[in-house]
Amino acid sequence: MALDQVKALGFDVFGTVVDWRSGIARQSAAFFEQHGIAIDPWQFADEWRALYQPAMERCRSGERPYVRLDALHREMLLAALQRRGIDPARFDRAELDRLSLAWRQLDAWPDAVEGLQRLRKRFVVVPMSNGNIALLLHMARHAGLPWDAILGSEVTRAYKPEPTAYLGTADVLGIAPDQLCLVAAHNDDLAAARGCGLATAFVTRPTEHGPTQRIDLAPEQAWDATAGNLVELAERLGC
Amino acid sequence: MALDQVKALGFDVFGTVVDWRSGIARQSAAFFEQHGIAIDPWQFADEWRALYQPAMERCRSGERPYVRLDALHREMLLAALQRRGIDPARFDRAELDRLSLAWRQLDAWPDAVEGLQRLRKRFVVVPMSNGNIALLLHMARHAGLPWDAILGSEVTRAYKPEPTAYLGTADVLGIAPDQLCLVAAHNDDLAAARGCGLATAFVTRPTEHGPTQRIDLAPEQAWDATAGNLVELAERLGC
Repeated sequence: MALDQVKALGFDVFGTVVDWRSGIARQSAAFFEQHGIAIDPWQFADEWRALYQPAMERCRSGERPYVRLDALHREMLLAALQRRGIDPARFDRAELDRLSLAWRQLDAWPDAVEGLQRLRKRFVVVPMSNGNIALLLHMARHAGLPWDAILGSEVTRAYKPEPTAYLGTADVLGIAPDQLCLVAAHNDDLAAARGCGLATAFVTRPTEHGPTQRIDLAPEQAWDATAGNLVELAERLGC
Repeated sequence: MALDQVKALGFDVFGTVVDWRSGIARQSAAFFEQHGIAIDPWQFADEWRALYQPAMERCRSGERPYVRLDALHREMLLAALQRRGIDPARFDRAELDRLSLAWRQLDAWPDAVEGLQRLRKRFVVVPMSNGNIALLLHMARHAGLPWDAILGSEVTRAYKPEPTAYLGTADVLGIAPDQLCLVAAHNDDLAAARGCGLATAFVTRPTEHGPTQRIDLAPEQAWDATAGNLVELAERLGC
């Protein structure tokens, strides 16, 4: 598929646009330090994030109804603490609320803002994330992400890789699936988007999971575009 | 109600942020000229817009399911032409599509972009409009409106003044109704928002309906704030 017909780029956000691991480690470290708890914050960030897919799977499978990611993040935080033998009841509710919303305060990868600004001249740029609107809105304010609109998961009420998450985004934008291109650092996300007829662009984020990352180091299919970062993607797409 | 607790401003868009009448008249004039049709484009803009509330009312009443405003605008355009004795079948479908989307290409009132930019420093700024996401997105690109997010009617699937349109917006933003302030040039919109517990700010737009406008020239209740335009509102709110 050529990208000539593409009118909008939908971006995976966690890992592709923002560096969730550093942001969560930084905010967790401050929390643990304040409470005199000795835990490697990088490891805790990984443990918290590891509960992400199982939490969403319960919604995708219909075991529970649609729940916003802000709420899932809070549940996941409590579970991650408990797995470390830490009783969440020892903390103030407001403190836990604040830490649970750390995902709203993640920094962009160094190339992301410039890349989005350049891509936006030619394409509509929107997040295509499992994040909810308020989460993505505050993240955009924090990190300066110049989205054209914030299509949080409330719009489709579906979590990727459910087809509705991809097809519903094209529908809301008023374009055909092949006029929408998913930009992601994750091969499985792109495979699901391609299965729905979307165009696909792979961006390498070799340290999303830290220095020993072993997945998503290279494209696993012939995606419609590949690039080392978002500025490079803008250059490849002539922006 | 003081505005101290307000965290987000939700803006009525048509009339409050953008000058729909000039934009629709300009684009209709070009269309009519091209086809050699002698119709006062300002009057046609009023006639087209006059079909707005009846069209939405059919959705609000449940007579038909939720329909995006882009689609309603197209139906309203065909009806407005037919009322003038003009058979829409004489035009290309693509031409009618383009004119029906004229609402995506409206200019902001002269104070709107600066006002939003200043207000955005202190508040989250979002549209609280009956427009759909794609409509509001392309309007924002055209007019340079610096929204934090675009909460089109797809998010609440309700049309103002239905309570869900106001309360659903607060819910999606993760704030209480009184932390959300509707900014509007229309007393009836503000009255409905106040009825839902929202804060209210009135902005005067004395020529929204042209030089002979008789409604909404002044606040009809003691709204929480009033201003002559959005820059003045920013000043009053200390932005």
